[in-house]
Amino acid sequence: MSGLTGVVACETSICSIEEGILRYRGYTIDDLAYKASFEEIIYLLWYGRLPNRLELIALKQDLTESAVLPPKIYDLLRLYAPWGNAMAKLRTCVSFLTHFDDEVMDHSFAADHRKAVRIMARMAAIVAAIERIRTDLEPIEPDAIKFSSLAEMFLWLLKGEKPEPIAVKAMDLCLVLHAEHELNASTFASRVTVSTMSDIYSGIVSAIGTLKGALHGNANEQVANMLEEIGDISRVEEYIAAKIANQERIMGFGHRVYKNGDPRAKHLKALAKELGEYSGDTRWYDMSEKIEQIVYESKGLRPNVDFYSASVYTYLGIPRDLFTLIFATSRTSGWMAHILEQHDNNKLIRPRAKYIGKKHQEWLPMEER
Amino acid sequence: MSGLTGVVACETSICSIEEGILRYRGYTIDDLAYKASFEEIIYLLWYGRLPNRLELIALKQDLTESAVLPPKIYDLLRLYAPWGNAMAKLRTCVSFLTHFDDEVMDHSFAADHRKAVRIMARMAAIVAAIERIRTDLEPIEPDAIKFSSLAEMFLWLLKGEKPEPIAVKAMDLCLVLHAEHELNASTFASRVTVSTMSDIYSGIVSAIGTLKGALHGNANEQVANMLEEIGDISRVEEYIAAKIANQERIMGFGHRVYKNGDPRAKHLKALAKELGEYSGDTRWYDMSEKIEQIVYESKGLRPNVDFYSASVYTYLGIPRDLFTLIFATSRTSGWMAHILEQHDNNKLIRPRAKYIGKKHQEWLPMEER
Repeated sequence: MSGLTGVVACETSICSIEEGILRYRGYTIDDLAYKASFEEIIYLLWYGRLPNRLELIALKQDLTESAVLPPKIYDLLRLYAPWGNAMAKLRTCVSFLTHFDDEVMDHSFAADHRKAVRIMARMAAIVAAIERIRTDLEPIEPDAIKFSSLAEMFLWLLKGEKPEPIAVKAMDLCLVLHAEHELNASTFASRVTVSTMSDIYSGIVSAIGTLKGALHGNANEQVANMLEEIGDISRVEEYIAAKIANQERIMGFGHRVYKNGDPRAKHLKALAKELGEYSGDTRWYDMSEKIEQIVYESKGLRPNVDFYSASVYTYLGIPRDLFTLIFATSRTSGWMAHILEQHDNNKLIRPRAKYIGKKHQEWLPMEER
Repeated sequence: MSGLTGVVACETSICSIEEGILRYRGYTIDDLAYKASFEEIIYLLWYGRLPNRLELIALKQDLTESAVLPPKIYDLLRLYAPWGNAMAKLRTCVSFLTHFDDEVMDHSFAADHRKAVRIMARMAAIVAAIERIRTDLEPIEPDAIKFSSLAEMFLWLLKGEKPEPIAVKAMDLCLVLHAEHELNASTFASRVTVSTMSDIYSGIVSAIGTLKGALHGNANEQVANMLEEIGDISRVEEYIAAKIANQERIMGFGHRVYKNGDPRAKHLKALAKELGEYSGDTRWYDMSEKIEQIVYESKGLRPNVDFYSASVYTYLGIPRDLFTLIFATSRTSGWMAHILEQHDNNKLIRPRAKYIGKKHQEWLPMEER
């Protein structure tokens, strides 16, 4: 009962996690990780099948064309203090975007899919704009540039220059691996929200706020904090031993659903290694590998999706407090698939609580309290 | 399984609905409706007992002092088009408020309760400011005025003048009756959100987005639309008969949890009658009463909390698209109680989905799709 662990809350055709194998629409994550681009994943999640070449070209074009932000988003971003919480900024901006979409209340299949594309593309652009504006740089307008992919677009808008091919490939793989994960808390929150027939934006806003928590999307940022705190491979053993002795949680390990390891972790591990070697600095990868070994030997826990993604994003030069925002951008593809599925066959999600409080109370006048 | 109907999702000591009787912390809504002010309800919901005189005075003072909005909220409100969806504006503003609260990430009991007071008070002020700014009026600054209650403050900030006592009494009763209702969808969404240890603001933002849906908080606005469409008591019979013949839903009737009538409806009915008579125009009350009679005779359904609140708010001169925002302001007291309870003994809310989609799919190269 507690935390609805193991309780089936709905049916879905989007994603399965069975015997430790993660599948999007029936395709294993191991297949998708090496073969599919993030845009193919978006199409697969939203339409239930892989796109053909023309469909993929059309989706890519729609995405990059939709990434142009309403100018007032920049006015909003300029109201923030630079040091403001980045996830809260993203949550507010996506909520604000509602006002620049004429189709918010149109729940038809076609309108819902157009909104999905807009939100997906604008989310990536907003994350980049948050960083540009808080560092006193002009945001890059995406309409003059021809991007090859959403991954390239995001890095380009963030850094203001064409990213290296290896960085685009790495970002694309991260987006693929984080895209969807069944009824995790943020996805579930988005389904609860739209089950009242609230709009898609409300669903995504709920999901962002839910992902923000330390027990969900925020974990990879905490992994990076830990790696920085350790600083050098020579200090790993002592640091982790102290954590274990104090029964402190080591971020990036274990998962409620995977008992024998998270199938996404090995791909991120290989990517962290490749990026470390390419950059000529394998310090973070080496520390991570050693932590993995010690934690497995002493606690039997394996790394989850958050563990190596911390190193990957660091190698890509992404500010640490944007890690969860990239997670949100990727997961928007999955959130959206669940929102569309929920609206397609909607039933209000309204459980009950077990009351354990005071029984019948007699009213007390003020003087008797 | 579907919609988690009847599934127990958590334990709570805040509110019970047993045998059709609604109780906040053990006190029946019938007792509370006539005896307690909204501030006493807030205290009761958050601290589990009724306040004594000093505690109540302190809470009232804290609430009205906290209602002063950060000036940038007005800048944000001025970015909106006047006709923008009011619930989306509220959702964005509350999300934005995060940036003006230094204690967002402090989850201690004291800090959580201070934040609760701030959010509660500012919500009321934001709703009023949304209306003032979209109608080209200056928002009223609450700090120069001594308000007797949150109900008075809200009406004063909305209208720009001291409200009549009967209006304050009516608003207070509406706030009391809408304050809390166990695990409705918006409350559940807020608990799912904060169960990741996300912050209180994220929880309230999720709840607002969830309440926005037509199957939840938006119903009283639709009741008002229906009453306006009918226009006169002579047209009620024909209008409702046509709805029933076409198997269309009649808004404001029936409730998943109450099978023998919503215990809040009779209080709102009496209030609608009183306000109608006071205003000298009982047209809306009369139409409502006739609709109630026909719907009960033909479908066996009784009015819920939304049905007569539509007339009450209309008599109070509140713009129709603010009805759900007032609901949100009131329910913030309940949402907050649940958020504090969730954080007090947290466990991640993460159910499972039953996978009914395609089984194992072999990867298809682009050329074969």
